[in-house]
Amino acid sequence: MARVANALHVGIAGLGTVGASVVRVLATKAAELTRQCGQPIMVTAVSARDRSRDRGVDLGSAKWFEDPIELAKSADIDVFVELIGGDEGAARAAVTAALESGKHVVTANKALLAKHGVALAEIAEEKGVLLNYEAAVAGGIPVIKTMRESMAGNTVSRVFGILNGTCNYILTRMEAEGISFEECLKDAQRLGYAEADPTFDIEGNDTAHKLAILTSLAFGSRIAADEVYMEGISNITQADIRAAADLGYRIKLLGVAQQTDSGIEQRVHPTMVPTASVIAQVHGVTNAVAIETDILGELLLSGPGAGGNATASAVVGDIADIAKSQPGFQHGPVFGRPAKKLTPYKKAEIRSHAGGYFIRLTVHDRLGVFATLAKRMAENEISLESIVQQAHGEPNAKQKTVILVTHETTESLVRKAVDAVTNDGLLVDKAQVIRIERAE
Amino acid sequence: MARVANALHVGIAGLGTVGASVVRVLATKAAELTRQCGQPIMVTAVSARDRSRDRGVDLGSAKWFEDPIELAKSADIDVFVELIGGDEGAARAAVTAALESGKHVVTANKALLAKHGVALAEIAEEKGVLLNYEAAVAGGIPVIKTMRESMAGNTVSRVFGILNGTCNYILTRMEAEGISFEECLKDAQRLGYAEADPTFDIEGNDTAHKLAILTSLAFGSRIAADEVYMEGISNITQADIRAAADLGYRIKLLGVAQQTDSGIEQRVHPTMVPTASVIAQVHGVTNAVAIETDILGELLLSGPGAGGNATASAVVGDIADIAKSQPGFQHGPVFGRPAKKLTPYKKAEIRSHAGGYFIRLTVHDRLGVFATLAKRMAENEISLESIVQQAHGEPNAKQKTVILVTHETTESLVRKAVDAVTNDGLLVDKAQVIRIERAE
Repeated sequence: MARVANALHVGIAGLGTVGASVVRVLATKAAELTRQCGQPIMVTAVSARDRSRDRGVDLGSAKWFEDPIELAKSADIDVFVELIGGDEGAARAAVTAALESGKHVVTANKALLAKHGVALAEIAEEKGVLLNYEAAVAGGIPVIKTMRESMAGNTVSRVFGILNGTCNYILTRMEAEGISFEECLKDAQRLGYAEADPTFDIEGNDTAHKLAILTSLAFGSRIAADEVYMEGISNITQADIRAAADLGYRIKLLGVAQQTDSGIEQRVHPTMVPTASVIAQVHGVTNAVAIETDILGELLLSGPGAGGNATASAVVGDIADIAKSQPGFQHGPVFGRPAKKLTPYKKAEIRSHAGGYFIRLTVHDRLGVFATLAKRMAENEISLESIVQQAHGEPNAKQKTVILVTHETTESLVRKAVDAVTNDGLLVDKAQVIRIERAE
Repeated sequence: MARVANALHVGIAGLGTVGASVVRVLATKAAELTRQCGQPIMVTAVSARDRSRDRGVDLGSAKWFEDPIELAKSADIDVFVELIGGDEGAARAAVTAALESGKHVVTANKALLAKHGVALAEIAEEKGVLLNYEAAVAGGIPVIKTMRESMAGNTVSRVFGILNGTCNYILTRMEAEGISFEECLKDAQRLGYAEADPTFDIEGNDTAHKLAILTSLAFGSRIAADEVYMEGISNITQADIRAAADLGYRIKLLGVAQQTDSGIEQRVHPTMVPTASVIAQVHGVTNAVAIETDILGELLLSGPGAGGNATASAVVGDIADIAKSQPGFQHGPVFGRPAKKLTPYKKAEIRSHAGGYFIRLTVHDRLGVFATLAKRMAENEISLESIVQQAHGEPNAKQKTVILVTHETTESLVRKAVDAVTNDGLLVDKAQVIRIERAE
């Protein structure tokens, strides 16, 4: 295809659900996009694994590249859109090639950014091109733009969110229908909300990748996705969900990044949030991000975190931002502050985490159990907000459930107390410990 | 003050709470802002009514202008920040002068934009300068940037929100404490959440101004703030709030703009939203905006809608966006599409509004009242989702309360039915009619 003057030429690598949706939106909304951007946006080149597949979209006269890296370097394009996926291989090579040849890049690839984002940002900033990645975190929610642009002048203290739709879908159904984690997961897989191998979602890795990117934007630190503390949702039971509801909480898998005296906490775990908080009402596959700062206060964004169209919306927004800029424009830094000035990530250990805790214990129904429990808590300076004993079904049951809710304490004290109770031989089952998160 | 090369020179007119906060943030966060923007942001000139007042901030060597219009035109500045207020007079004259002399403008002035926004945008676009106004709608919530930039390619079907903190504060306390509107208003005034003359807030004018700006961004139409249908919250009673709660609703003052077959609805009125929806959890002075589109789906943003710091955060974000751009940069249009290409606003009349309705009637306790009520509804093709009769205190009370909730119908049918019931002489008091809004 010959170059058209005064048009932004876009090359798209990866034509799955998101890629096809991007092509469709750029075509059907061409007139309005041209009005908004001051120039037409044209898909002039594409690359994908299977050329013959019917994607339900008209690729027009776009040039077909077998090799995405060749596409990335091609003189036919101004912007390279990477929708290949994966943190190495073709995605990494193509994005690097595009940036090095002075092309703007738009990507939805959280894994790539979590691993190589800072290095790629350095290339982009050196070359004076944009690296836009709104779709990489929380799908259609404009959290990258908000943190990178709207929050200039704000010092962030905490950012937290529901960043994985699969987990939120499962937890929402567990609560609404009273069914087990396993049953929900099977259903989610059947309906296409969970992968055949769901480990990456339910154990928190996906959330950790997204959180690590938000941490960098929030605190001006280098991305450290390997330093995220992770607990998944697979051991959450109906007993936890019911006890949470009784206490005025709902369980969500949150990613939380927080500035503390000893460094920055990055943690992904099932979390109790107050039922009356806004984030507690975020149901199903919907995502949400809350950001707390010194000047603005608390901001919450919620919306679709995945899906072809929502992700495409973020990709198109990123492309439009590039179309509105002119050659030679000096862009804001990729991660808010210039990549070379990002500080090393200083980790706050999970053991130093301060907060409230929910502790569910299944104990032998023996004389003196309560007294011992209370003693172990007191020895570890843990003060209790509430202690609830739940009778089991049969009147002569040999075990009881005890639910403790602590006032603010630390992870290390809670672990010591739980270890002591375990060593006392009081427990029938492993103790269940769930962190409580402040939320408005 | 002499011009410093490679720095963005800012002039601020209006040094009230917001202005002082902007000065403070630009000073205390100078190093980080310089890192983010690639150049320092310096307040080089100011203007305010009272030069002698102590504002608790250091104005440094900023040049003082008695006349904001002189400041707007001054060669000492690159950006004019208008925090004077008012839709005419100094604010309008100064913003016009700044744009005409080729300066970028940042304003928090919703009244000015609601009235003259399109004309000002035309000047800005002709001169190739930015007119940024994030602070004008929903304070610290980045709804302008989201709609103007992130939603490129999306066609909006509805935008609605809690846009006035005073009203939401009053409704929240009425529900939480069971006290009357009048009592809440007095307390809000005492605590500084409501003005001495609260009319502008509680009758919906403030919400209407903000809504009219969002309507333009959503639908690419010219701003038509005078065409907003308005009902305030002053006639909301405890009876309404309790009945709403019983039915699974909460009452919020919403601004709603919606595309319909006959045009665009713009309406501000007390609204029943489902208690389990996210927007129903937005309490106190917090604001929220929900945007529904064809591609992204539904996005919700919530956060502080007013206050010196939250508003200053939005102003600083707008200034930083300008600092990141270079002279000669071609900017996106002020209201999403170029001002000259905004379409005339085509009004959808409130009488054609389609939706569910809550109708609270205080009726004489006579034989046949129910039959007549039912007949009038049926005559007007209104089908009922529920009908609840509330017994009054005394067993022999001569009046009853009847609460009707309709399935989707139209405003004109509801008005006809209520008029008929009124003419039948069934009512002790004026009927209370509250629209129900779909929300997730």
